[in-house]
Amino acid sequence: MGELPDRYPLPGLPEEVTIYEVGPRDGLQAEKQIVDTATKIEFIERLRGTGLIAIEATSFVSPKWVPQLADAAEVLAGIGAPEGFRHPVLVPNQRGMDRALEAGAAEIAIFVSATERFAQENLASTVDGAIESATPVARQALEAGIAVRGYVSMCFGDPWEGRVPIGQVVAVVRRLADLGCRTISLGDTIGVATPGHVRALLGAIGEAGIGMDRIALHLHDTYGQALAGVLTGLQCGVTEFDASAGGLGGCPFAKSATGNLATEDLVWMLDGLGIRSGVDLDRLVQISGWMAARLGRPSPSRAVQALYRESDPDTLF
Amino acid sequence: MGELPDRYPLPGLPEEVTIYEVGPRDGLQAEKQIVDTATKIEFIERLRGTGLIAIEATSFVSPKWVPQLADAAEVLAGIGAPEGFRHPVLVPNQRGMDRALEAGAAEIAIFVSATERFAQENLASTVDGAIESATPVARQALEAGIAVRGYVSMCFGDPWEGRVPIGQVVAVVRRLADLGCRTISLGDTIGVATPGHVRALLGAIGEAGIGMDRIALHLHDTYGQALAGVLTGLQCGVTEFDASAGGLGGCPFAKSATGNLATEDLVWMLDGLGIRSGVDLDRLVQISGWMAARLGRPSPSRAVQALYRESDPDTLF
Repeated sequence: MGELPDRYPLPGLPEEVTIYEVGPRDGLQAEKQIVDTATKIEFIERLRGTGLIAIEATSFVSPKWVPQLADAAEVLAGIGAPEGFRHPVLVPNQRGMDRALEAGAAEIAIFVSATERFAQENLASTVDGAIESATPVARQALEAGIAVRGYVSMCFGDPWEGRVPIGQVVAVVRRLADLGCRTISLGDTIGVATPGHVRALLGAIGEAGIGMDRIALHLHDTYGQALAGVLTGLQCGVTEFDASAGGLGGCPFAKSATGNLATEDLVWMLDGLGIRSGVDLDRLVQISGWMAARLGRPSPSRAVQALYRESDPDTLF
Repeated sequence: MGELPDRYPLPGLPEEVTIYEVGPRDGLQAEKQIVDTATKIEFIERLRGTGLIAIEATSFVSPKWVPQLADAAEVLAGIGAPEGFRHPVLVPNQRGMDRALEAGAAEIAIFVSATERFAQENLASTVDGAIESATPVARQALEAGIAVRGYVSMCFGDPWEGRVPIGQVVAVVRRLADLGCRTISLGDTIGVATPGHVRALLGAIGEAGIGMDRIALHLHDTYGQALAGVLTGLQCGVTEFDASAGGLGGCPFAKSATGNLATEDLVWMLDGLGIRSGVDLDRLVQISGWMAARLGRPSPSRAVQALYRESDPDTLF
């Protein structure tokens, strides 16, 4: 579209934000097919060429649980550690931490749940138990000078429990903050959050004394709500947003749809608002088109669908 | 999802809004295949059962241009005029007006362009020429006690011209307001608008002395931006939003994709914000699932994809 979107700032929003790219990890782990190691490495290298700085590379979860990312060490070795980039890796427990350190991880992410049921279903633990398991891992990382990100799942609703009280989420966020997590990412794992809910949770977190500079929003687009939530987050002072190139992991026609917010849709909005993210939208769209072709199905990203088709009208992707 | 989305109002937003449903007209006119008259009538009747009050029924554009809606008179006769519902019809010119009156239309919509190029491409006219052609039609309607809605296309960008100056849009809106249009619908025909742009245009319209109670937003989801724009509209005091059941007319895999905002995605956000629209989301999802099956392809609505699959896990739609 060339000169579109037209640029119109909104008063009171941040001038610059960080896009925390989760496609190679959160995206690919949710895809049915296993992408080969060389393609993963090429994907991350190409993503670095778009201006993305923070790209979560892989996960050291047991290959039994997530066979899609069984090649975590190979991927991390393959992408190297060029200056100026961050490649955090997901670490579930001590075993994963040992593997991550051995592979040379320079930044890790731990994950816990805001709800008991999801802690049980996904982590085979309790809310407390998951935080306790993560504690020595986080301590070890911090002692080694490795930054720690904390993910909290099901912050806005739970598929089994339904509503999730805000106080319950704030308590978990508080514990991750006390643990030393540099950033705490609030996951709307099932994509149900609407703008008032985002503002209410962020307000309560602020009242608990945790600054917005330590908060990231990880919104899913399952019901089309993610960007309205990002806008609300920006209005509340949040400056870090998780997104997945091409909406990877969120194929709308897969039963396992998780609905990751597509990085391209996010960049379109930020570009229109004149908020710097450093990301080149056109380059990113080409990469997501390439990855969609690899996966053999269209990208669920609205912007990719519109822009990649424009650049290559004969493609389905 | 039962009790989700959780309800959290945002301060300063309207308590109630009108959803102006455009699926039967704007949606079906953009679909490749022609839906039979009986199905169109059943569609509108079922939509009335969801709580939607304002449902644009059809268009009296020449069947040569829009063969999909050649049965406008039959559809209008078939759906009747039950009390409490509004069924506006699109009217392009005097010939269309004659046909609409003969068919018993009780409310009409005229349409003009904010840009010269689109006026030329779509209306074979100029911006001025289109308004002048619409003027006697609008006058005739108002003299007959028939309410007139005005659509303005390409308010936020034009596929040929690129950027569209706000002053140019305001001038057209002003003329439609002076013509007596009860509501003027600001069309983001190519879906490029971001929140700052929405606010800037609404601000300029307000400064021109046109109240937000006469403005509707007609946003497209081509780049995933529509709901963020709706949120901004709500924050500016707009209380009428155009949307298309199931995102009809916006199939992402059709080359002619227009990307209508899906009514379901809109209702999810309004429900979460505690803003009354009167629409029952679950009923609407069932209807859109039925229509998607009729059309033989999945609904592009995120909410329909998530909720209809939940209600019927074996369906592709």
